[in-house]
Amino acid sequence: MILTPPYLLFIGDATDPLSIKMAKSVADWNPDACIGEYALPGCEVSTGLPAMTINEAVSQGANTFVLGFANSGGFIDEAWVPTIVEAIEAGMHVVSGLHDKLTNIPAVVEAASRIDRQLIDIRHPTTRFKTGKGIKRSGKRLLTVGTDCSVGKMYTSLSLTRALNEAGKKATFRATGQSGILVAGEGVAIDCVVADFISGAVETLSPDNDDDHWDIIEGQGSLSHPAFAGVSLGLLHGSQPDALVICHALNRSHMRGLPHYPQPTLEDVIEMTTKAASLTNPDVKVVGIAVNTSSVSEEEARQYCEDISQKLGLPCTDPVRFGVSNIVGAL
Amino acid sequence: MILTPPYLLFIGDATDPLSIKMAKSVADWNPDACIGEYALPGCEVSTGLPAMTINEAVSQGANTFVLGFANSGGFIDEAWVPTIVEAIEAGMHVVSGLHDKLTNIPAVVEAASRIDRQLIDIRHPTTRFKTGKGIKRSGKRLLTVGTDCSVGKMYTSLSLTRALNEAGKKATFRATGQSGILVAGEGVAIDCVVADFISGAVETLSPDNDDDHWDIIEGQGSLSHPAFAGVSLGLLHGSQPDALVICHALNRSHMRGLPHYPQPTLEDVIEMTTKAASLTNPDVKVVGIAVNTSSVSEEEARQYCEDISQKLGLPCTDPVRFGVSNIVGAL
Repeated sequence: MILTPPYLLFIGDATDPLSIKMAKSVADWNPDACIGEYALPGCEVSTGLPAMTINEAVSQGANTFVLGFANSGGFIDEAWVPTIVEAIEAGMHVVSGLHDKLTNIPAVVEAASRIDRQLIDIRHPTTRFKTGKGIKRSGKRLLTVGTDCSVGKMYTSLSLTRALNEAGKKATFRATGQSGILVAGEGVAIDCVVADFISGAVETLSPDNDDDHWDIIEGQGSLSHPAFAGVSLGLLHGSQPDALVICHALNRSHMRGLPHYPQPTLEDVIEMTTKAASLTNPDVKVVGIAVNTSSVSEEEARQYCEDISQKLGLPCTDPVRFGVSNIVGAL
Repeated sequence: MILTPPYLLFIGDATDPLSIKMAKSVADWNPDACIGEYALPGCEVSTGLPAMTINEAVSQGANTFVLGFANSGGFIDEAWVPTIVEAIEAGMHVVSGLHDKLTNIPAVVEAASRIDRQLIDIRHPTTRFKTGKGIKRSGKRLLTVGTDCSVGKMYTSLSLTRALNEAGKKATFRATGQSGILVAGEGVAIDCVVADFISGAVETLSPDNDDDHWDIIEGQGSLSHPAFAGVSLGLLHGSQPDALVICHALNRSHMRGLPHYPQPTLEDVIEMTTKAASLTNPDVKVVGIAVNTSSVSEEEARQYCEDISQKLGLPCTDPVRFGVSNIVGAL
């Protein structure tokens, strides 16, 4: 899977900042790969990149049009097809992170074929995986796990990788979701793998490595989320993590998308996750807590992290506000 | 996915009884749906049904030709293609439980298209599922869960359904694997669903029902199996089981296919499974233990079941040897 930057990030008519996570991630973590963003009327959010039209982006060198938003179910709305075709006809390849395949839309396939542009559905792995074996691999692994979906697992993983690299340590970010893949340029969209191969795919994603090398594996979903816990468990088993970082969003009233499901406590998540992880790595340890504290003031955030750290005996931080040096120190 | 019996069961040139599990399952559990079996020279096993040619089967009313065997890799041998085409030209739809798709074989697709027959790859769900919602559904549900793979979950589920029906209770077997789908005529091959939709697919498979109706849902894999636990957890959450039956095979030395993984204890499986299941149904209860005791004598088997029943305070049986009346009684 070879992506061709720079990108024009298409954010549709999104109104929820969380729904443009893919566009925002690459804008934040790989800005050199981005030219700008393109929104439709009604869009209420932004990546922070300059807004521009398709033709403006192409004239500034954009090579690829990225569908950088998500929706429940991951469908490609009929209404977006003319925009996608317009982008192709302007000369761009198209990357999508949605479940629906670009390659299943006749008008899009026709346009791409006509002027020889690529359609890349990054959520649809083309590799043929094997089932998991659970055999111990060399090298060290850290997995970020969540109390819920969309709590900052990718951001935390990227922060940890960057901090380790800056400290002169060997570390590689292993992307398991479409945003991470767009940032890293490679990876496996683990929630799109056929269920039989979840842990096997992760074993492939994070192969044997040097003894002093850390794979920082991006977590997905949550063991406490009724829709996605299966993905999270397969990812946990395939990762064989030596270290876990628990990611949490402060002041959520319920599990994402499910108002009838309360959030689990950090203590419950620690207990449940270490127990499950011990199947493939009995030496697994939680090494830190990463909290998205954006719902409170910086002072309250600092106090919360201190309290949690005290209570659980673990480093706790908000990676965005305070960095991850305390967790990296504990590795 | 809905099939059209009666079937002619094609068992190829199989020599291992385990490799025709799919054909044998439907011959044992739904003989009225079967006309006979068709084997190639060299075949050393049988479903017990009368052997016949394709034309004989069609003249006796066969509507569907079933590839009822498995092989390592799940491939469709080139050598079988003429036979499959012959079956189509004789007027039959074709069902396959192999990994390779019928719909990827040009000669087969051409023949089916020419005389308007269906090609059904039952391991490849065509339904478009939604992600799980975890909303409580009406009716009652029982899920069979395993200490390992291939321990008798399908057999136990079918036995329970039959026993409930014979006792005048409303009960429906819900198939989640290719053999079960062939027996039931419908279902979802849950290990072949895209990982994001495991629990959502199970919610679709077992919808709202009468308050006094039992869905008996066929389990897959095991929470203790490093390759397949993700599938098992998604299936558990989507099932929202009121009742669990733990299925176990006596005297296995290790997890199936993984000599480096020991078997879990029944106590561990009960604790882990009820804890995980309580996310979507806090009232979940283990109601019985079903053991495959084929490795020991009938007397030893009876003693083992009595000991386990005593130790765990639950009905315990070998469904093949002793039936499931004690578990059904406990429902």
